[in-house]
Amino acid sequence: MTQLELARDGTLSAAMRAVAEEEGLDPEQVRSGVADGSIVIPANINHKGVEPCGIGTGLRTKVNANIGTSSDHGDANTELEKLQAAASAQADTVMDLSTGGDITAIRRAIIASTSLPLGTVPLYQAGIKAIDRWGSIVAMPVDHLFAAIQEQAEDGVDFMTVHCGVTQKAVSRLRQSPRVTDVVSRGGAFLIGWMLHNDQENPLYEHYDRLLDIARRYDVTLSLGDGLRPGSLSDASDRPQIEELLTIGELVERSREAGVQVMVEGPGHMPLDQIATNVQLEKLVCKGAPFYVLGPLVTDVGAGYDHISAAIGGAIAAAYGADYLCYVTPSEHLSLPEPKDVREGVIATRLAAHAGDIVKGVKGARDWDLKMSIARKNLDWQEQLRLALDSTRATESRAQHDTSGSGCSMCGQYCAMELVAEYLGTRPVQC
Amino acid sequence: MTQLELARDGTLSAAMRAVAEEEGLDPEQVRSGVADGSIVIPANINHKGVEPCGIGTGLRTKVNANIGTSSDHGDANTELEKLQAAASAQADTVMDLSTGGDITAIRRAIIASTSLPLGTVPLYQAGIKAIDRWGSIVAMPVDHLFAAIQEQAEDGVDFMTVHCGVTQKAVSRLRQSPRVTDVVSRGGAFLIGWMLHNDQENPLYEHYDRLLDIARRYDVTLSLGDGLRPGSLSDASDRPQIEELLTIGELVERSREAGVQVMVEGPGHMPLDQIATNVQLEKLVCKGAPFYVLGPLVTDVGAGYDHISAAIGGAIAAAYGADYLCYVTPSEHLSLPEPKDVREGVIATRLAAHAGDIVKGVKGARDWDLKMSIARKNLDWQEQLRLALDSTRATESRAQHDTSGSGCSMCGQYCAMELVAEYLGTRPVQC
Repeated sequence: MTQLELARDGTLSAAMRAVAEEEGLDPEQVRSGVADGSIVIPANINHKGVEPCGIGTGLRTKVNANIGTSSDHGDANTELEKLQAAASAQADTVMDLSTGGDITAIRRAIIASTSLPLGTVPLYQAGIKAIDRWGSIVAMPVDHLFAAIQEQAEDGVDFMTVHCGVTQKAVSRLRQSPRVTDVVSRGGAFLIGWMLHNDQENPLYEHYDRLLDIARRYDVTLSLGDGLRPGSLSDASDRPQIEELLTIGELVERSREAGVQVMVEGPGHMPLDQIATNVQLEKLVCKGAPFYVLGPLVTDVGAGYDHISAAIGGAIAAAYGADYLCYVTPSEHLSLPEPKDVREGVIATRLAAHAGDIVKGVKGARDWDLKMSIARKNLDWQEQLRLALDSTRATESRAQHDTSGSGCSMCGQYCAMELVAEYLGTRPVQC
Repeated sequence: MTQLELARDGTLSAAMRAVAEEEGLDPEQVRSGVADGSIVIPANINHKGVEPCGIGTGLRTKVNANIGTSSDHGDANTELEKLQAAASAQADTVMDLSTGGDITAIRRAIIASTSLPLGTVPLYQAGIKAIDRWGSIVAMPVDHLFAAIQEQAEDGVDFMTVHCGVTQKAVSRLRQSPRVTDVVSRGGAFLIGWMLHNDQENPLYEHYDRLLDIARRYDVTLSLGDGLRPGSLSDASDRPQIEELLTIGELVERSREAGVQVMVEGPGHMPLDQIATNVQLEKLVCKGAPFYVLGPLVTDVGAGYDHISAAIGGAIAAAYGADYLCYVTPSEHLSLPEPKDVREGVIATRLAAHAGDIVKGVKGARDWDLKMSIARKNLDWQEQLRLALDSTRATESRAQHDTSGSGCSMCGQYCAMELVAEYLGTRPVQC
């Protein structure tokens, strides 16, 4: 039985208990969230040693790091290094988006070496093997796609991005609503090529029940991908994007009926004042399904700093209800990330998630900031460095210069904290 | 006559024309904004060669970089290096917050070598000289403070932070509303020490007319500092902060009556859902005076990444009407910034300002993103790198790996842009 089926049956699984303990919540709250679909716990029955991670309403906003080879670069060792970088920066989950080298071997190496829940996009493997075997992705037989899904489910993949909402109807809306950047999702692009060439419906939509069967067997959580997500501010919140979301909403309900855990992916590139609306729309149209957003990037011109652009959008999204942020690295739009980019991306996204959690009222979020502020007031540097989002970086930065005072080298002898304590007569505060 | 007096007289000054040209606006719009106080143009009559920079409603959100020595570190050469870093990263203005070494000499060296408008906090110089001469800031005579203001005005400082709103009444509210981090503004702390020790009113409030006289003579723009800004999320939007804002609102009106340009400084540390409210409150209480915010930082735990925390808060503030963002560097709360930190801080803040300008509808803001997206769609790399917020960084990042396709090494041969153009039959787009 899947976590969803167990929860509906009133069973408190070990995974639900673990999530509740990690979040400091009543296990019953987690069970009830899984039962109504507002929480998912991606944990394939074949992923030995996976640490259950809850994603959804009332829980800490989670952070995903994408790793994986491209056709140009990367091998299993490099990807394992990136996996290590993501884990040490405290990503909650990892996705392997490999499209180069021995995709199956790389995925198996990653699964074997991490307890983080792992996600994939099986269409990448299917499409690239189709190109190898038949010269083009459009020649891919439907069975070949489902064989890749089956193989990955058996291997223990915990959640899969499947672009089921890219239907012929959505493509038709796309033709009627010209975009600046058309389609920027690789999965979406693969499928649209296949659909137009073969004049057939999206196989992931057409054969959705077949997908549900596999997902249910291994308790793979479906992550309904947004193949038509906007790739520029100009295209944000347009009719093709919302058309796809409506279909995804229907597929969420079918997934839940089948006992399959499901979440929904969101944009993309978006002016910051559209983010709250997009989150609310997803929650309404998709009946409270956990929302997994990529960015959103609040400007198109930040190449080299898209982790910051995404942190701005991600913080706002999380504050208004997004449950899960996919990181963006500084190399987005420019090159395949290196391990150092992975670290920067994870930390910036964790910062955004936490800023959102403060607003959401997630348990423990404000306490962390309060403890830091008390340590700051007390000029307790050991505690400040310990509590910093990234203690390593904070420690390095503090060591950049010596200081003569008990503050830091920025204000030297003239630390406001010290001056005011003297004149206002305030005392060190307690937590 | 000050720019404000000229504008009220109906005169279109060279500075107003220059600002209008830079912003692509009708000069009359700029004149009318300066006349009603919703725009300031900090340009001391003694700052030779200063490039006028407009700050306020309808204009591009501006970015300030703080440089300056501390009692522990820095000399004129280091500060000139930071000035260069700020200018090359395209900061709009610079503040010299030096509190160590020969403060006067450093300031004069900076003024002589930059065409960017320069701001200072004269109280730092006055207070530190008082410590040297009389052993303590509390022994500072009022005339000594005004002598520093006079000297800096004569030297050509374009705008000055003056914490005039830290009144005895505000200190009394502070005592009645305990805080986690009391006072984190150095200027605020200096003044509170002086006021409590001498049992006198804040001299910058008590002798505000004297300040206005000097400011009017040199057309120094007053930046009414928030000595009681919150230094932690817990203290945000509390009664002491708002009490100070009310006084500042009154002082804005007195400044305008005296023909002195004036803007208002804002917090600080703040949960992201309070930012829009704070911006609106400032605009109402201070009768549309330009709002100059520090951050706001949306979490207290980001030490090492406070430029990102500030970019999140700054983007939201700008989107809801803040006019001017003071950068925060990655070394905030930890150490005096180095030139590399200055660069990171300026770029992150420019990104935030631009994300806000997109929402504000600032002229040209969306066009920039549109041009970038069109270049992206056309896989025109030269143009993408040229249009990037930081072309140098974007170029380095792209060069991180070779690519076999016409896209980038992230997707290699499987670039969605290429795939879709093939199947949807879309053509390169024109601007």
